[in-house]
Amino acid sequence: MTELAQPRPREITQEIQKIQESYDAFKAKGLKLNLTRGKPSTAQLNLSADLLSLPGAADYFAEGANDCRNYGILQGLAEARRLFSDIMGAAPEQVVVANNSSLALMHDTVVYALLKGTCEGSTPWSKLHEVAFLCPVPGYDRHFKICEDYGIRMIPVALREDGPDMHAVEQLTAQDPSIKAMWCVPKYSNPTGIVYSDAVIERLAAMKTAATDFRLYWDNAYAVHHLTHERIEIANIIELCARHGHPNRPFVFGSTSKVTLAGSGLALFAGSRENVNWLLSRFTPRTIGPDKINQLRHVRFLKNEAGILQLMEGHRALIAPKFQRVLEIFDDKLAHIPNVTWTRPKGGYFITLNVPNGCARRVVALAKGAGIELTPAGATHPYGKDPDDSTIRIAPTFPELAEVEQAAEGVALCVLVATAENVGLARA
Amino acid sequence: MTELAQPRPREITQEIQKIQESYDAFKAKGLKLNLTRGKPSTAQLNLSADLLSLPGAADYFAEGANDCRNYGILQGLAEARRLFSDIMGAAPEQVVVANNSSLALMHDTVVYALLKGTCEGSTPWSKLHEVAFLCPVPGYDRHFKICEDYGIRMIPVALREDGPDMHAVEQLTAQDPSIKAMWCVPKYSNPTGIVYSDAVIERLAAMKTAATDFRLYWDNAYAVHHLTHERIEIANIIELCARHGHPNRPFVFGSTSKVTLAGSGLALFAGSRENVNWLLSRFTPRTIGPDKINQLRHVRFLKNEAGILQLMEGHRALIAPKFQRVLEIFDDKLAHIPNVTWTRPKGGYFITLNVPNGCARRVVALAKGAGIELTPAGATHPYGKDPDDSTIRIAPTFPELAEVEQAAEGVALCVLVATAENVGLARA
Repeated sequence: MTELAQPRPREITQEIQKIQESYDAFKAKGLKLNLTRGKPSTAQLNLSADLLSLPGAADYFAEGANDCRNYGILQGLAEARRLFSDIMGAAPEQVVVANNSSLALMHDTVVYALLKGTCEGSTPWSKLHEVAFLCPVPGYDRHFKICEDYGIRMIPVALREDGPDMHAVEQLTAQDPSIKAMWCVPKYSNPTGIVYSDAVIERLAAMKTAATDFRLYWDNAYAVHHLTHERIEIANIIELCARHGHPNRPFVFGSTSKVTLAGSGLALFAGSRENVNWLLSRFTPRTIGPDKINQLRHVRFLKNEAGILQLMEGHRALIAPKFQRVLEIFDDKLAHIPNVTWTRPKGGYFITLNVPNGCARRVVALAKGAGIELTPAGATHPYGKDPDDSTIRIAPTFPELAEVEQAAEGVALCVLVATAENVGLARA
Repeated sequence: MTELAQPRPREITQEIQKIQESYDAFKAKGLKLNLTRGKPSTAQLNLSADLLSLPGAADYFAEGANDCRNYGILQGLAEARRLFSDIMGAAPEQVVVANNSSLALMHDTVVYALLKGTCEGSTPWSKLHEVAFLCPVPGYDRHFKICEDYGIRMIPVALREDGPDMHAVEQLTAQDPSIKAMWCVPKYSNPTGIVYSDAVIERLAAMKTAATDFRLYWDNAYAVHHLTHERIEIANIIELCARHGHPNRPFVFGSTSKVTLAGSGLALFAGSRENVNWLLSRFTPRTIGPDKINQLRHVRFLKNEAGILQLMEGHRALIAPKFQRVLEIFDDKLAHIPNVTWTRPKGGYFITLNVPNGCARRVVALAKGAGIELTPAGATHPYGKDPDDSTIRIAPTFPELAEVEQAAEGVALCVLVATAENVGLARA
């Protein structure tokens, strides 16, 4: 081995001192930076400025002469269901268009299954001794929060380059009837950006499950959220599940929160006719219908799928450079650090930064000390506990490019400090 | 008794034949009329036409420089909470502004209590052997549907001129800890239009309940929906409950569905700080926030409470004549019929028509035969069963005045036919 690979203690000390000085200098700038949440930036929201004055005073009839201003139409406007049909991978009759939050749809389907059971007429999940969900990790904290809140046991499975560890998934679901569902972000996963391969998706559709009403919570949040010219398409989970004799397995969710306006978009659901009928029967005591004017507004603004894809090009032009810059800075500063890696997503809203075991919380704390808010370490894992303490989620979309750059430089410095401390500790 | 009060059988037969001929003639017109649901008319919706192009492309900041287009602000915009504070009878901090359906808020508070218990930290209601709600009858079918759907036992109590039969309410709630709540439409009640007296409201606030987490589901849906110049105000249930040591008793609900747009309004909640914190903690796993652009749109359009009241004057001008016409026709055609009465609401959306016991379903069927849709008889009672089969809900707001007139004439004819048949049967 070279001298460089086996530096003498004094050289290490000097190196650590240098890193510490850089960190202190960064800290001294007193910046306020935030890479915590997957929020669109102001410039992205501006792309949908026209929505704010639509549909206009004279435009309130949907097709079939439905007055969108009045009550009704529980499933959502026919033209809105058609607009999102291809993206959701289901016929318009199998699509439900709801209000502004797909998380709310996911939450509510969990709640309905707990209180009333699924469309198979199964025992309400809350009456069972135990209910568990498979949770590919790292994953989305808000999925895990729903489980935690309702006492649903979370079983982590590893998320790999091509999707969840299917050997583990198949073994677990085949044996344990208390495993009722699995969280999936199949495309441009939150937070690693990976895409489920067709082979993985087919295995998810085909696998035997001990639970007769097993569900894939298929949160296709980033269906059209490409970061490169390559528009990755994934296998159609609804078709594959039907083909393998499990038509009711997938609950597919989507949203325009990161297409139009984050707070005022549309939430989407798709599934088998049985699942759609079940969901509508669950909606019936709850509401007389969704905000159809907002649906009409979106139909007028987005027009058709080409309109959606064109709008997404605008988003890509704004956010791809931010991802690019983070990756360049990590490449530049961190490439030589052992056990530090990061993902290179082709879509979605996040980069995952993997640091040596035991370092993630320290990096986040150092970042906070330097004025950079990061998602809490552990948030990507069930119960907020990353057993390796190694995963950090980076969300570069919201700040301006110059701030993203500063923040990425700062984070890289924090990783250097934390790993240097680690080495120091290991040698101490 | 006079001859008229004791007619001879032949005269009765002739009278019945005349009524039957009038009914047949009405039927022959082949009309399609609908008095089923409390929907605003097209002209009413037109009053809020400006909403359809608000807030405009450049207007998206709420106070505190909050970009309404982005995620967040779980409790709703501060200015929206302030706008509805007086109407809800609570400080803005105690108001929550949500999406487009107050029924959804009611449903969700039931669901949260079932799965998680109330803010007192009580056992989740779904874990109890039995949960019951008091249901003043006649009442609102959609309230009852929520109970029916989740297996909550409904206990009817009589609704009188000044509110529910408080003697029954006090006795039941004092004795039975499974009685967890009571549905109330305290002002311009659905469907009778009665207003709870201050004395009744005080008794509801003060009464001892065996359940330690008893709730008044206070659906003040018609808070500003006056039909006369008299703007009736009711006692403040939040203040009274607090004064009597039961601050968490009321869940107050409101809505702009019948102020602005029925499908695209705002849903409102108010209660104690503990209840608000509880509700927000229940929202946390469900959503990142409500549609704030729609809240900003409403703030810009309604401006202040005076703006709301002025808009409601516009509604009154459109719907009061419809109520008036129905009452005139009933007065004209039905005043002499024994055991036929109707309410004269000073606000709200409904008239209750009381027919002799055993006649309501027959009237609704006769109306249907003559092309007039009425709310199914029984809908005003738990499980859709009116034990006396005597209550009919009339909803005159949606059709044009000329149609309301035709429909009221038709309904009056149907009452005449049904009561004549009744007399015939009694004598047969």
